[in-house]
Amino acid sequence: MEKKTVSKAVLKRLPGYLAYLKNLPEDAPAHISATSLAHALGMGEVQVRKDLAMVSDGGRPKIGYLRESLVDDIEQFLGYDNTTDAILVGVGKLGHALLDYKGFEEFGLNILAGFDANPAMEQTDGGKPVYPLSKLSQFCRNHKVLMGIITVPAKNAQEVADQLIAVGIKAIWNFAPAMLEVPKNTLVQYENMATSLAVLSVHLQAQIKEGKK
Amino acid sequence: MEKKTVSKAVLKRLPGYLAYLKNLPEDAPAHISATSLAHALGMGEVQVRKDLAMVSDGGRPKIGYLRESLVDDIEQFLGYDNTTDAILVGVGKLGHALLDYKGFEEFGLNILAGFDANPAMEQTDGGKPVYPLSKLSQFCRNHKVLMGIITVPAKNAQEVADQLIAVGIKAIWNFAPAMLEVPKNTLVQYENMATSLAVLSVHLQAQIKEGKK
Repeated sequence: MEKKTVSKAVLKRLPGYLAYLKNLPEDAPAHISATSLAHALGMGEVQVRKDLAMVSDGGRPKIGYLRESLVDDIEQFLGYDNTTDAILVGVGKLGHALLDYKGFEEFGLNILAGFDANPAMEQTDGGKPVYPLSKLSQFCRNHKVLMGIITVPAKNAQEVADQLIAVGIKAIWNFAPAMLEVPKNTLVQYENMATSLAVLSVHLQAQIKEGKK
Repeated sequence: MEKKTVSKAVLKRLPGYLAYLKNLPEDAPAHISATSLAHALGMGEVQVRKDLAMVSDGGRPKIGYLRESLVDDIEQFLGYDNTTDAILVGVGKLGHALLDYKGFEEFGLNILAGFDANPAMEQTDGGKPVYPLSKLSQFCRNHKVLMGIITVPAKNAQEVADQLIAVGIKAIWNFAPAMLEVPKNTLVQYENMATSLAVLSVHLQAQIKEGKK
């Protein structure tokens, strides 16, 4: 179907539907309706119906969607079916863990290599190559890489982002706790585990205090 | 200083300040003002001044904060100085990576062990113990664990959350793409890497289409 432009909010709900659909048992019914999906996920029927209609035209009244086709349609919409090549800059603890994380494949992400200003190794424990930053430009052009992952310290993040943009990167997944300035056609997605941990930790402190009263 | 209750928005900015302050070179000036911090991070002066005043009373007019004390105050506020013990449920690819990730220590998180319905190993590559889920209750009570990390498939997430709550967990870091129902005194922090990747991927597809025009 002709690809529609959907809001970021819809986009954020799609992986949830996908995960649910893919985790249904083998012997589940072949069809699923927006209504039953909404019930299963505790969401509003209208919202789920609208969301699914944005990404698939396979829904039939009273029958619903053929589950397999719906999974395909969502995956295609999210780009999971065509693999995206990416490179990662900053091979510290987090960078190393992400390079070796085998779960990205199912989301269509393929991290080709890691780069570091002072590489401590030639490859990761999992066998991903690690190059000095000086090779970044050549590598990205050779492999036509469009996505970059930043796992350097905050103070180096903007500098690295500038380098990535200069070599043609259009999408940045930023794990450094720093806001980045980028051109309009470049998207930055921020990931901040430290923030999540802080929120949890402050909550726990309050709970402990409460418990002591 | 007496601990104030801060909004989630403030809480989310604090790790950014901290990362910047900790990454300053050794020979940087001993004092830093809210103004210069705001400039360095491209943020509003008033906001930074207010945020810092919430977590530290060490600021002096025209001089600013003693950098070291400010770092201590923020870390104390965020609970990084007292270690939080946590357990993780779901030792698949992501769970394994998190168990072996060495970067959590600096945020005061210590993952004691992993649990899995069908453990494929007795310990991770990095040496963290992995137990069958049947041992969860005893372990959490013995170690007085208050934080749980969920890395199971979406369909099992609520069931696991219920088990965690039953053994006294008050803070859940949820990596499963599922909304959880929890009691009021329990906080869930959602982490969804699949969503981030989807947002980036859809942007790239649009960019590629644009480039072909």
